[in-house]
Amino acid sequence: MKLLDILQEIDDSPKDVYLVHERFERHYDMHTHKRDQLSFVEGGVAYVTIENEYLVVPAMHFLWIPAGVPHKLNVSHRATQLHSFYFKSSEKAFYKDLGIYPANRLIIELINFSQRWSHQFVDYNEPYAAALFSLYDILPLMAEQQIKLQLPTSEHPKIEQVLQYIHQNFHTPLTLNEMTEQFYMSERSFCRLFKKELHISFIQYLKTYRIIQSISFLQKRKDYSIEQIANATGYESLAAFSNAFYEYTGMRPSQMRKMIT
Amino acid sequence: MKLLDILQEIDDSPKDVYLVHERFERHYDMHTHKRDQLSFVEGGVAYVTIENEYLVVPAMHFLWIPAGVPHKLNVSHRATQLHSFYFKSSEKAFYKDLGIYPANRLIIELINFSQRWSHQFVDYNEPYAAALFSLYDILPLMAEQQIKLQLPTSEHPKIEQVLQYIHQNFHTPLTLNEMTEQFYMSERSFCRLFKKELHISFIQYLKTYRIIQSISFLQKRKDYSIEQIANATGYESLAAFSNAFYEYTGMRPSQMRKMIT
Repeated sequence: MKLLDILQEIDDSPKDVYLVHERFERHYDMHTHKRDQLSFVEGGVAYVTIENEYLVVPAMHFLWIPAGVPHKLNVSHRATQLHSFYFKSSEKAFYKDLGIYPANRLIIELINFSQRWSHQFVDYNEPYAAALFSLYDILPLMAEQQIKLQLPTSEHPKIEQVLQYIHQNFHTPLTLNEMTEQFYMSERSFCRLFKKELHISFIQYLKTYRIIQSISFLQKRKDYSIEQIANATGYESLAAFSNAFYEYTGMRPSQMRKMIT
Repeated sequence: MKLLDILQEIDDSPKDVYLVHERFERHYDMHTHKRDQLSFVEGGVAYVTIENEYLVVPAMHFLWIPAGVPHKLNVSHRATQLHSFYFKSSEKAFYKDLGIYPANRLIIELINFSQRWSHQFVDYNEPYAAALFSLYDILPLMAEQQIKLQLPTSEHPKIEQVLQYIHQNFHTPLTLNEMTEQFYMSERSFCRLFKKELHISFIQYLKTYRIIQSISFLQKRKDYSIEQIANATGYESLAAFSNAFYEYTGMRPSQMRKMIT
């Protein structure tokens, strides 16, 4: 049963919520629905495309997509588990805006608990299902923690190679100089192509990619100190890492580690 | 404001639940109320007396007291934090029986979350308060994990000394022989006095006391292996400890550690 095939059924049902817990890769083409969607990324990374934004949902973060917003969702990393909830749409402030937020421990536990149900409709008054309404109900508390990590992509062959090189070498002190030598381009034409295709600079892209990787490290490598994670993601100092992390997520790495582990 | 003084008000209120989060020692004399009570012991130990039972609520466990059951509650350990909820009484099966249960992670997170409110009445439809109903709603899932640790007490001066000696030396290989020598009594009269005053044997008392201490160690000393906890609570082998633990709690020590930490 493919999710996109039953979207109409999900929209039309009188039931409070539809739940899906999925492992493995997923690519959902551009689509829209009349319910509000919560998707929690347990491991790996998911990417969501809305109009011309290409946003990243890191591990232990959730994505809120209000009813009626056309979106494309890619869950490409092998380790990813995605937990999605289709709620009846709400007119309340928080629920009307698309957003990406870190999940706190209570949200994580409620999502774990929700795995009692999968690929099914549930009403809040069913046994133990008050927890599902409670999950929905506390989401606005995360509003101030919203993060926005843009990681655009392109099908330009040269840019595809460039991105692959970044993904393989982000943990080294990658410089613009190294990139231009690697790809036999002048700095001027490298920067121009990068910006034209991806709408952000090489440095912005690299920083974003490193932050996303560091979030994954924070979750998976509990044996690593924050400094070790800084080094593993290409930062030469803890301070530089912590500042960049704060700039992108509104939190220090230690705060996020506490929150997501 | 003393809790016992406002019990009548709590009983009579039309609100869904009354919450109290308390640090420090507490002694509530025998009393009864028309609401169902949930009390979660975050650290230390609490003792509840019902008729002639003297029950222990270890750290990270909760006590459920149905409406109308006269009870006495002692929270004596300094590290204790007690979280209590007075719910409208229910006629459903689980809620009609007094019980002591380990709290799973979801319950613990919901209780942490409930600290937004304290010494106050809350209705479930207030902002974010769905979590309080959800806490109430999932409790029956713990029914199979019920534990019953009896640790009676007595005001007999000799027995008070004996218990104090046990509390100070439970981590050593305490024997009946050592006890009788320590207190200049024959084995026969020591056992008779112990049983007369406490209604359980010296060995039962010692085992129960060690299990309660080990639960506290499981929670507080995450750096200790299960074997180290066995040794710290007077067990000479991991197997003996694990078996006694299972006998009293229905779980292996490792299972409880996973559940409460």
